[in-house]
Amino acid sequence: MAETSNHQEDGGPKESGKLILKTPKGTRDYNPLEMAIRRTVFKTITDVFHMHGAVEIETPAFELKEILTGKYGEDSKLIYDLEDQGGEKLSLRYDLTVPFARYIAMNKITSIKRFHIARVYRRDNPAMTRGRYREFYQCDFDIAGDYDPMLPDAECVQLVHQVLSKLDLGDFTIKVNHRKILDGLFGACGVPAEKFRTTCSAVDKLDKTPWEDVRKEMVDDKGLDPNVADLIGEYVKLSGGEDLIEKLQADERLKDSEDVQAGLKDMCLLFEYCTLLNCQENLRFEMGLARGLDYYTGVIYEATLQTGQSGEEGSVGSVAGGGRYDNLVGMFDPKKKTIPCVGLSFGIERLFAIHERKNKEVKIRATNTEVYVAAATKGMIQERLKLLAELHGEDIKAESSYKTNPKFLNQLQYAEENGIPWVIVIGESEVNDGVVKLRETATRKEETIKRDQLIQAIKTR
Amino acid sequence: MAETSNHQEDGGPKESGKLILKTPKGTRDYNPLEMAIRRTVFKTITDVFHMHGAVEIETPAFELKEILTGKYGEDSKLIYDLEDQGGEKLSLRYDLTVPFARYIAMNKITSIKRFHIARVYRRDNPAMTRGRYREFYQCDFDIAGDYDPMLPDAECVQLVHQVLSKLDLGDFTIKVNHRKILDGLFGACGVPAEKFRTTCSAVDKLDKTPWEDVRKEMVDDKGLDPNVADLIGEYVKLSGGEDLIEKLQADERLKDSEDVQAGLKDMCLLFEYCTLLNCQENLRFEMGLARGLDYYTGVIYEATLQTGQSGEEGSVGSVAGGGRYDNLVGMFDPKKKTIPCVGLSFGIERLFAIHERKNKEVKIRATNTEVYVAAATKGMIQERLKLLAELHGEDIKAESSYKTNPKFLNQLQYAEENGIPWVIVIGESEVNDGVVKLRETATRKEETIKRDQLIQAIKTR
Repeated sequence: MAETSNHQEDGGPKESGKLILKTPKGTRDYNPLEMAIRRTVFKTITDVFHMHGAVEIETPAFELKEILTGKYGEDSKLIYDLEDQGGEKLSLRYDLTVPFARYIAMNKITSIKRFHIARVYRRDNPAMTRGRYREFYQCDFDIAGDYDPMLPDAECVQLVHQVLSKLDLGDFTIKVNHRKILDGLFGACGVPAEKFRTTCSAVDKLDKTPWEDVRKEMVDDKGLDPNVADLIGEYVKLSGGEDLIEKLQADERLKDSEDVQAGLKDMCLLFEYCTLLNCQENLRFEMGLARGLDYYTGVIYEATLQTGQSGEEGSVGSVAGGGRYDNLVGMFDPKKKTIPCVGLSFGIERLFAIHERKNKEVKIRATNTEVYVAAATKGMIQERLKLLAELHGEDIKAESSYKTNPKFLNQLQYAEENGIPWVIVIGESEVNDGVVKLRETATRKEETIKRDQLIQAIKTR
Repeated sequence: MAETSNHQEDGGPKESGKLILKTPKGTRDYNPLEMAIRRTVFKTITDVFHMHGAVEIETPAFELKEILTGKYGEDSKLIYDLEDQGGEKLSLRYDLTVPFARYIAMNKITSIKRFHIARVYRRDNPAMTRGRYREFYQCDFDIAGDYDPMLPDAECVQLVHQVLSKLDLGDFTIKVNHRKILDGLFGACGVPAEKFRTTCSAVDKLDKTPWEDVRKEMVDDKGLDPNVADLIGEYVKLSGGEDLIEKLQADERLKDSEDVQAGLKDMCLLFEYCTLLNCQENLRFEMGLARGLDYYTGVIYEATLQTGQSGEEGSVGSVAGGGRYDNLVGMFDPKKKTIPCVGLSFGIERLFAIHERKNKEVKIRATNTEVYVAAATKGMIQERLKLLAELHGEDIKAESSYKTNPKFLNQLQYAEENGIPWVIVIGESEVNDGVVKLRETATRKEETIKRDQLIQAIKTR
């Protein structure tokens, strides 16, 4: 008996006496139809996770504040703190990666391939129309353990490829780069080592900002030499496939940089493995990809969807991202012993939004009720309840009206509006004859069936 | 590649330099095996919800503070507030019922049958060994709408009966009572109307506290006349079935109380409907059942499990509870227009704990990988990756080692330890002959299969 048409997309305020009825800024409710879509998207993704033999974990929504301290660089100001009501200082989790690293260190785990689907919290000023919120789902897959180079990394790319192919939301690109290549490049161009991370943050803005503005930030805010910035500018616009790897291996300025060459060797292996794993077609080496977070140490990647409509691409942005972070677990270990990790996170809210837009014309049901039990005449409440008990006892999804004497037409209408395929009709004459009528909602055809053969009749349909 | 044996049940502290590695007080992580169990329990419950045609909604983890204000009586002090970082005053949700009422009022919904599975937050001092936490899952099912008496209420009882039967955790009792009967009783015994709620709170403690202590609280703390308390004591120890309804209908003191008689009429109907719905066997009318929360207005119920071992029963306590709350939505409506509601909440953490204890001997897998791809000789990484891509392309759950040259026995051992039923073995000779070996982990039997018939061979097994 769902009524969902009045749902307000933006959780906008409605006056109620003095009370304003709304969800907190940057948050939203999910109505039943949205939840039905969400279930579909989650199932597709978790099926792929299970295909790779991943296990699932869950951690609390908040952590000790000090666990999160010093992990997010400039974004730390976006962390929600809980009020000090006596006891520990707590903060809502900002992502699922830091809690994962805490979990590994705390439990002294040496290897795990896990997924984690949960909401995270950021005091951002998000554009909610674009599927960005202060409370939003992340869907993370990570591989921790000391393994041979690029095998887990390639599996992450393969997994993104599989999920986006199965969700069938349009063409996509998986951009990859490597933090060692970036750092080596910065060094070779003359950036001092202590400015690597902040230069990286500037490059990270290239997907939303023109080069001219990024260059300005590098020179004016970060204090880079204009010539250094221009040099970087020449490289970060490069993108390609294995050809670009070869080109950079031979580059005069970069060929003596150990970091760059180590990174390029990784990239070579990544492209080889991805080809074997049959997921190389959408892969693109992009020198301008930087990723904002401080903790990445190796391969980084980001997947973007082409929605096909001009102007929309920018509003979709990236739908998955991740990379290698080999030192994060060590930050929690007393002896700084670390566990190498690589992983990715799906931007689920955006995938929902695109899925919703794409499936607007598809009729989605919020329930999957199979049978509606309708009374044709008055006084059928006892019979209806007995029928419901019998149907439920056979695991058949069934509903009936909560009125003792509902109008017949209202019941048929309810079944039609809610897409319930079958209606069992029972009235005085049916009770007397020991039968029921079985009505097919789509065709409105009715058939008389013996009461004791009803369950069998429904199961065969 | 899961490693879960080091999981710490209590999230206890471990020193890490200055940092103490633990989850916040009253919270816990779930390890992969616990998550596998949780998935099973959730699926059982949601299947029953779907059987009743319920839709699903989700609301934010926090609400505007004022939404929660004045809804929980004495328990309001347990609400977690977020720090004031500028902007709105926010609190973590205390339950799923108040957010549901806010959702109904905000969206002007007139009828809905919904479920909602999510975590709630209470700054309690819980006994975590008993499955009680500060952050814990609730699993709520509610019916909102203006319907004929007791039909939705009976469905709630039926649903509890179905879920507990399907979970198969032992015998259970569904206790029922009625707020009108309690209020009428208090009035008939001489409690002033303004002390009904506080007297009710005292009665609520009867499941954990002996009558003598409850009586003391009534007299000393709540200021009831000792004779009044003794009179109440005579009634709240009564329990039974339809016989008790008849007895109370004829009771000299209660027969003139409109509230009591209205409540008893409801109870009559509830027992009749539950009999028709085939869920009356575990139903017990308990005059001592009160439920703590202020917002209940009609039928209240609570399900308890008998674990069969002495001493354990008390430690399990109630696993589901709920009732009718006809005025809560009206508290959010500008014209105080209300929508009658009835619902229930499963105490999921306790169900998990009991399920875990019961299934200790059952071998549970955290993954459901079907095939492990093993190398018999060196240099098989390319072949293995191609095989993985092929298997995943056919939606077959498959894993392989992240080492380029893993030891053969280690691979077989991994498959055995993780209960992976099949191992594909590939080595130089197999590649040369265009075949693979398919090994059954349980029997260790091997069979040679042509490479191009492999997928078919696995699918038929």
